[in-house]
Amino acid sequence: MSTLLNPKRTVAELKELRQLTGDQNGAQRVAFTKTWLKARAWFKEKLKDLPLEIHNDEAGNAWHTLHGPSDKALLIGGHIDSVPNGGWLDGCLNIVAGIEILRRINAQYQGKPPVTVRLVDWADEEGARFGKSLFGSSACSGNLDMNEARGLKDKDGMRLPDALRDVGINFERAKECGKELKSAAAYIELHIEQGPVLLDLGLPLGAVLGTFGVERHAITFKGQAAHSGSTPMNRRKDAFLAAAKMSPEIYKIAERSKGGVCTIGSCTTKPGIVTSVVEECRITLDQRHLDGAALKQMFNEAQEASERFAREGNVEVSWERLWQIDPRPFNNDLIDLCDESIRETCAKSHRLPSGPLHDAAEVAAAGVPTVMMFVQSLHGISHNKIEDTKEEHLEMCVTAFDKLAEKTIKWIEQKGA
Amino acid sequence: MSTLLNPKRTVAELKELRQLTGDQNGAQRVAFTKTWLKARAWFKEKLKDLPLEIHNDEAGNAWHTLHGPSDKALLIGGHIDSVPNGGWLDGCLNIVAGIEILRRINAQYQGKPPVTVRLVDWADEEGARFGKSLFGSSACSGNLDMNEARGLKDKDGMRLPDALRDVGINFERAKECGKELKSAAAYIELHIEQGPVLLDLGLPLGAVLGTFGVERHAITFKGQAAHSGSTPMNRRKDAFLAAAKMSPEIYKIAERSKGGVCTIGSCTTKPGIVTSVVEECRITLDQRHLDGAALKQMFNEAQEASERFAREGNVEVSWERLWQIDPRPFNNDLIDLCDESIRETCAKSHRLPSGPLHDAAEVAAAGVPTVMMFVQSLHGISHNKIEDTKEEHLEMCVTAFDKLAEKTIKWIEQKGA
Repeated sequence: MSTLLNPKRTVAELKELRQLTGDQNGAQRVAFTKTWLKARAWFKEKLKDLPLEIHNDEAGNAWHTLHGPSDKALLIGGHIDSVPNGGWLDGCLNIVAGIEILRRINAQYQGKPPVTVRLVDWADEEGARFGKSLFGSSACSGNLDMNEARGLKDKDGMRLPDALRDVGINFERAKECGKELKSAAAYIELHIEQGPVLLDLGLPLGAVLGTFGVERHAITFKGQAAHSGSTPMNRRKDAFLAAAKMSPEIYKIAERSKGGVCTIGSCTTKPGIVTSVVEECRITLDQRHLDGAALKQMFNEAQEASERFAREGNVEVSWERLWQIDPRPFNNDLIDLCDESIRETCAKSHRLPSGPLHDAAEVAAAGVPTVMMFVQSLHGISHNKIEDTKEEHLEMCVTAFDKLAEKTIKWIEQKGA
Repeated sequence: MSTLLNPKRTVAELKELRQLTGDQNGAQRVAFTKTWLKARAWFKEKLKDLPLEIHNDEAGNAWHTLHGPSDKALLIGGHIDSVPNGGWLDGCLNIVAGIEILRRINAQYQGKPPVTVRLVDWADEEGARFGKSLFGSSACSGNLDMNEARGLKDKDGMRLPDALRDVGINFERAKECGKELKSAAAYIELHIEQGPVLLDLGLPLGAVLGTFGVERHAITFKGQAAHSGSTPMNRRKDAFLAAAKMSPEIYKIAERSKGGVCTIGSCTTKPGIVTSVVEECRITLDQRHLDGAALKQMFNEAQEASERFAREGNVEVSWERLWQIDPRPFNNDLIDLCDESIRETCAKSHRLPSGPLHDAAEVAAAGVPTVMMFVQSLHGISHNKIEDTKEEHLEMCVTAFDKLAEKTIKWIEQKGA
């Protein structure tokens, strides 16, 4: 098998794509733009010698199918779109590795794999232009909120349905693509980690347990403005004091949660002048956990803490939900196979949750057994031109991900039997 | 003596001045404006039947002198100027009470008091228009920074020296008015508290120990932006966490200082988005104490704490001084006399520091024995049209302040002997 797979070619092709669709500021493959169409054309060209059935679905997702004896299919998914000034690997790593894996499977099985294998390029994973990620995969999973999406506009005021029409997609029919998942038996996705966990552990690869659920809120504390010189400390209703106490508290909440993360990302103060006690302080709180009950517990603990701090400081507190999503745990069998594939490639594996969302979360939500593989990110940075991964790790991830594809084909066969 | 003093007339005259120089938004006696000149003309008119020598000094301070056997003088000081949309009592309470006290002294001593008594209306105490308070009194004390003041502009771009020229003041000669203080033997000033201390204690009047020294800084913590979903808690360099720890800490620092106050009045975060750990957090810290050594200690403790929190959180911290002023303690003999006068008027007194600055701070800095008397503020609010004091308390403060004037005359006589 290894002689049929050429991971070095994947690295070379990633560079080719970067050259074609990036500039000095990074990748520019924003969905539904000319550069994105150019990237997709390049992708299609790469596959032209393989015996694939190729079509775009109603949401603009591109499907490349190597048919097996039945429709029962292994899906390999990624996205060729990027944020503006993005990294060279985010999303397209899977697409380009997927090309190599299709080549290997086609060669090994002389065009007739034991199960159908499909490589999907999801449309607009990033949501960079319209502020809403996972367009194509959420249309496919059925989770896309049509009313919300219909109203989305880009910064020039163009509506999403109009932008879609320009690239031949009828927005109102987008969710019809759900039928693509009917024959899906498993879904695997390779991605850069976009965080520092594997880097810290000195490990090239990890098996992903699922994507975090998210509770995102704005918390507003309301006290009373008062002169900083003439107001004794015990007379103050200091909104900043109550808000500030939340910061060390969320670290304790995250620690107790065993695996969750909490972030206060912004803080604003009113009147916000040096000579006045803060009357109003607004902070944002983002909480994430892989376990739904643990996430709920984290949320409850934060809310209770905020009320306690408000009482202590004689101020008021109110919460406003900004966003919420449930955790999307991946399939245990596939997590085991992913782990095995990694260990066979580089001796040691690590299991970790995914903080960011991915198309895999939508596919898992649709009930398809799913797993992701992460490769180490340098600097733990992505969505930035400095996003990078060592070439040896890129080669390893192609090898390990190919092993995972093969093991998953076997798993589908056994399950089907 | 009490038959010669008419505190009810003071309340009536305060209302007369409010009617003449205020509107539905509050007092409008901003220094160097027409309304301010109108207020001063009203003031002069009120004094026209007393045998006073009246002149404006080089800084525009208005002096009204009832000559005694020597030049050695008791000064009674206040300011008729207000902030825009200001309260009806701030500053002018002293001026109007001073009129009544001059009437009483003149009547009691048939125009020949044992020591010279001078009522001064300081020019531009508030600094509302040019952003710099205590213009007239700091010119008189010698503390006015001529280079800084020369460059001050109002919001229409008019420079302070030009605004002064329009009301007949030559800016470059302003500090020559320092000679007015040469014969000053004591300075007393009556003011509303502008804070809640007397209100909380249920007391009408208090003797002021001095004005706070102030250390005012901006503190910037610098960490690292990182994705709120993919960055483990123990990997974060969270600038907000370090800044937030300062808030409970300054309450402890203030408590240990015995009498000081500390305020974090504003907090800003960068990038300040819900999905990122805070990279940079800037807070302002205002610290005040009546004792210079205690203020220094508070400042040192805050700085040490910030460095400790920075180390704990793996972030950097830097301090930038915004402003600083030394404490201005008042004269112990005069504080005792003030206390006595209050107890004789309403049984109970209270000694308290002044958080806000006053002209008295400048006079004290010039070496003149000084004290202030505070009368209770309702709501603890000033610089606002809702600023108010009960009429019975206004009457009491005129009575007590008059007693203080008389006791201070005696004190000057004794000292001189």
